[in-house]
Amino acid sequence: MRKKYLSNTPRQEAIRILLTSVSIVGRTETLPVAKSLRRITAKPVFARLSMPAYHAAAMDGIAVLAENTFGATDQNPLVLDPQAEYRKINTGEALPAGFDAVIKIEEIQQLDDNRVEIIAPATPWQHIRAVGEDVVAGEMIVPAHHCLRPSDLGALLAGGINEVCLLAKPKVAVIPSGTEVIEPASERKAGSVPDFNSTVIGAYLQEWGAEPIIYPIVPDDPSLIKKAITTALEAADMVIINAGSSAGDKDYTFSVVEELGQVFLHGVATRPGKPTILGQIRGKPVVGLPGYPVSAYMSLEWFAQPLIYRYLGLPLPRREKIPVILGRRITSEIGVEEFVRMAVGYIDDRFIANPLTRGAGVTMSLVRADGLLVIPANSLGFEQDEIAEIELYHPRSELLNNLLAAGSHDLILDLLATVLKERNPQINLSSTHLGSMGGITAVSRGQAHLAGVHLFDPETKEYNLPYIKKFFPDHKLHLINLTYRMQGWIVPAGNPDGVDKINRLSELKLSFVNRQKGAGTRLLFDYLLEEAGISPHQIYGYNREEHTHLNIAAAVAAGTARVGLGILPAARAFGLDFIPLIEERYDLLMNDSFYKSREAALLFEIINDPEFHRQVEAMGGYSMRDAGKEQK
Amino acid sequence: MRKKYLSNTPRQEAIRILLTSVSIVGRTETLPVAKSLRRITAKPVFARLSMPAYHAAAMDGIAVLAENTFGATDQNPLVLDPQAEYRKINTGEALPAGFDAVIKIEEIQQLDDNRVEIIAPATPWQHIRAVGEDVVAGEMIVPAHHCLRPSDLGALLAGGINEVCLLAKPKVAVIPSGTEVIEPASERKAGSVPDFNSTVIGAYLQEWGAEPIIYPIVPDDPSLIKKAITTALEAADMVIINAGSSAGDKDYTFSVVEELGQVFLHGVATRPGKPTILGQIRGKPVVGLPGYPVSAYMSLEWFAQPLIYRYLGLPLPRREKIPVILGRRITSEIGVEEFVRMAVGYIDDRFIANPLTRGAGVTMSLVRADGLLVIPANSLGFEQDEIAEIELYHPRSELLNNLLAAGSHDLILDLLATVLKERNPQINLSSTHLGSMGGITAVSRGQAHLAGVHLFDPETKEYNLPYIKKFFPDHKLHLINLTYRMQGWIVPAGNPDGVDKINRLSELKLSFVNRQKGAGTRLLFDYLLEEAGISPHQIYGYNREEHTHLNIAAAVAAGTARVGLGILPAARAFGLDFIPLIEERYDLLMNDSFYKSREAALLFEIINDPEFHRQVEAMGGYSMRDAGKEQK
Repeated sequence: MRKKYLSNTPRQEAIRILLTSVSIVGRTETLPVAKSLRRITAKPVFARLSMPAYHAAAMDGIAVLAENTFGATDQNPLVLDPQAEYRKINTGEALPAGFDAVIKIEEIQQLDDNRVEIIAPATPWQHIRAVGEDVVAGEMIVPAHHCLRPSDLGALLAGGINEVCLLAKPKVAVIPSGTEVIEPASERKAGSVPDFNSTVIGAYLQEWGAEPIIYPIVPDDPSLIKKAITTALEAADMVIINAGSSAGDKDYTFSVVEELGQVFLHGVATRPGKPTILGQIRGKPVVGLPGYPVSAYMSLEWFAQPLIYRYLGLPLPRREKIPVILGRRITSEIGVEEFVRMAVGYIDDRFIANPLTRGAGVTMSLVRADGLLVIPANSLGFEQDEIAEIELYHPRSELLNNLLAAGSHDLILDLLATVLKERNPQINLSSTHLGSMGGITAVSRGQAHLAGVHLFDPETKEYNLPYIKKFFPDHKLHLINLTYRMQGWIVPAGNPDGVDKINRLSELKLSFVNRQKGAGTRLLFDYLLEEAGISPHQIYGYNREEHTHLNIAAAVAAGTARVGLGILPAARAFGLDFIPLIEERYDLLMNDSFYKSREAALLFEIINDPEFHRQVEAMGGYSMRDAGKEQK
Repeated sequence: MRKKYLSNTPRQEAIRILLTSVSIVGRTETLPVAKSLRRITAKPVFARLSMPAYHAAAMDGIAVLAENTFGATDQNPLVLDPQAEYRKINTGEALPAGFDAVIKIEEIQQLDDNRVEIIAPATPWQHIRAVGEDVVAGEMIVPAHHCLRPSDLGALLAGGINEVCLLAKPKVAVIPSGTEVIEPASERKAGSVPDFNSTVIGAYLQEWGAEPIIYPIVPDDPSLIKKAITTALEAADMVIINAGSSAGDKDYTFSVVEELGQVFLHGVATRPGKPTILGQIRGKPVVGLPGYPVSAYMSLEWFAQPLIYRYLGLPLPRREKIPVILGRRITSEIGVEEFVRMAVGYIDDRFIANPLTRGAGVTMSLVRADGLLVIPANSLGFEQDEIAEIELYHPRSELLNNLLAAGSHDLILDLLATVLKERNPQINLSSTHLGSMGGITAVSRGQAHLAGVHLFDPETKEYNLPYIKKFFPDHKLHLINLTYRMQGWIVPAGNPDGVDKINRLSELKLSFVNRQKGAGTRLLFDYLLEEAGISPHQIYGYNREEHTHLNIAAAVAAGTARVGLGILPAARAFGLDFIPLIEERYDLLMNDSFYKSREAALLFEIINDPEFHRQVEAMGGYSMRDAGKEQK
């Protein structure tokens, strides 16, 4: 059996090796100015003509010869005759020969069809745009390696430049590889991997100013991979192969690049992104990207972007950095530089950040991320409440309006986010799934604006309030009802195992899939177990955890579990059966300062809106009868 | 004669009127995900499929049933047979039925062709990517009104979404108008105005997510303007007319919009941008933009951008604001909100900003601007050294590397900027033309990194040093020679007036064009006058000022002056004759902290480079014999 090990080259060292070993060969192209927006100049551009090319009136009024107007005053107005002594002139019109000043229309009195009267002298060259006031011939309009903005296009045209010499977009070939890889829209079978990486890689390359060329998928066959790379090298300035860059027995990228050219390194000391290959063939850079999406995109940014920007002569954009308070402990391994996607909110005048899923396969962690925490190789990570610096994916100002919802997730929160954004585009409601207990903790610690909670208290048979009173008696917290929802068994269509009471699970040893610790649904399951006198050990799969209702339903739909506990819309999403068990109260917990905020007011407006009630109840299993009511 | 007055509606009030009176009618379109980069979603998108759709190996290794591995230790390794007890599996492959865990390749020992040995048990579901780990069916991938980024495209495809419902780009008609307006590439005659505004307006609209439709130029004829607007309204969601929006006798936009629909207001209390018309025709917004480029683009941003962003459901982007120290006094009129383009540099740990030309016709002021100072209507402006807040056109981080050159301008500084940027793309050298005296003051006050100076001292017959010793004896300043250059008379080709000595100017009463006060060239002219015993009054045009050598040459080329004083390359740029007078020393002045900086080291490297000397001397009239030498 194959056994290769990857190197642990530090990322900065890997970038240095790549940048000093290869370059993209420069090409230029000349385009009409109107087609050059956001393109990069190849050389400085100097004005060919002056703008204006003549002395022009800067105001509507009359052109005069200044020395003819000296002496005009309120007391002694001067009367001017047309043609010889004045000419009507509009803004932008050329100053007629023999005149050297303009008097504004507001400062003249029309006496009759011909003559005008002035009550103040003109100073020579007043209200005149001199030749070249805007752009003067010979002047540098834009330097080389300049990204052309709308106003630059105007200045170029003003300076008589109709075509501009630009750096051609570097052509970057993207070769998707893998026998299991299929076109994204193809029908999916077990074991097939839809190729969405090529689209994403192509989109990043486009955004960085390159021209991606996406090649067809190549199976794991060294001779076909070799052929694909050779073909791509004809057309492209740089080749990216995704994936086959690891050390498995079907990973051929290394051997093919080694055979055709040279591998600089195989393996970067990062997580994600480790199985990266950097090399060259015929002097052109070749990058083997990892297969996992997050790894692939990060590695692409580290290695392809600097090459493209160096070619374009642009400084690498630096992401804005801000200090944040970490809502949770984040551990890291020594020797590996870790990149953790973070959700960020602005709560009580502080930025709070929580890590998202760290799986390299979770594209959604990038979709949801507001920023990136880079943990250096020599760090073991950060403690909860520690301050760390993160790189932002959005401008800081946008984050000021990020509402952080922690706690239990419900599909209504997605709907709420949508309606909020429709009413105020500046507000983003982003949810992290911490479970009800996690949500209460986050809100009470000032680490989330609000949290969805549905915690059943067996003693009082009440929801939520007993927990808050017990754990946070001194906090001024508000509990607003969002909905009542039905919890039940999620089972395959037709309920083949006849699941009804919880005893059925232990009797039939049905494969169960549980929710994570701290989730309200898990506590409900534990309560049901206790009530029925069943020990967790008797439930097969008790320790198998998923984080959302939909993921529970997905496990049942995939056949790896026979039963789970969850809500109706999750079962519906997968065409599964739902056996109702209990109606539970789902409240939103918030602290006093958020409760009184402008954002919360808008939130309440929506929660109390009958149209919103209608939309929620249409999802099935919800009752909005108390929505918006504070629970005390 | 026509006499109309514009209203002085405050800008925010004007925006409010427009936004509450009109809207752009919504349309959606469905596009393949791969073609949706940077487009805006029309509604939330929920995953149709789960990714992965099956339980997949998260590592290369072997699939096992966890309960079969219990008990394996270092001491008691467990030997597994293929097929029944384990299967080889690669990352991403589907977990075969009957297995529930993966053991990493690094943790197994291949005994022979078939059997493997393990020395630790597997926990159930370890190293497995569960169904829906990335995206789970039913989950919201992106909300409505979301701008799709590369990673979003990946998540959509992963969730089985191949086409996405987007907001159609709003179509915005741009109608250039004016009898004097010509296509930008047409031959320019006196009085003709090339239409570069349409290109710029189109580019801004594109950047904001709209689809511009540029119409042909319409002359100042109300019936033709009416026809153009009517035609445009068929195709577009919004119409922009540029210009004819003022109150001149050829400004028909107001009357045409009034006739076809309704004018909400005519005139905004801003400078630039005042002559703006806001109205509607058949419910569609119509904006009449001023003709001056800077006015037009600002007015466009104030009124068209919010309409487009509201349609797309996006928050208006806010520019980053920073406090800056003002290098110069900036006055403003009460009752008018003023927008001053600013050049910004980071000097001695402070941001210093200087106003650029305020002319509404100077596109170059936008090209050169790093930020915008907004002076409220109730303010008289700011004093020198006052702290003001400005909006940034570039990220703050980029400004940290802005080198501010003040003082006298020389064309070499453009070349220097180009070479600097080529060697380090992060460095921008931007020049403001303050003249030599202004430059010395700016450097000594810490308001510029360096200044070009060429000040002749009649007493000592020396350049620059006497002034610095006299005015700033206590400052630690450095004076580095950049070049020697020839100053001379710039005259029409063939020198028709036989200009040689300065006496010729007063004798023939030749129309002269002077440089601004504080410019080294002006001081040189004054010295020449004094030496010849001529009074400034005897020079026709002594008070007519231009700010650069090129503008002097432009005035001579346009025939509005017969002679100016300047440098050879300026005369060359316009095909004029140059009568050499005196070789002057042109030094770069800098303070001690910049002199010792990394940026200055790079600057000196270039100034001392023989290749740079060659390039400069090829421009004519320069000698680089002392370039880089400090003058003491």
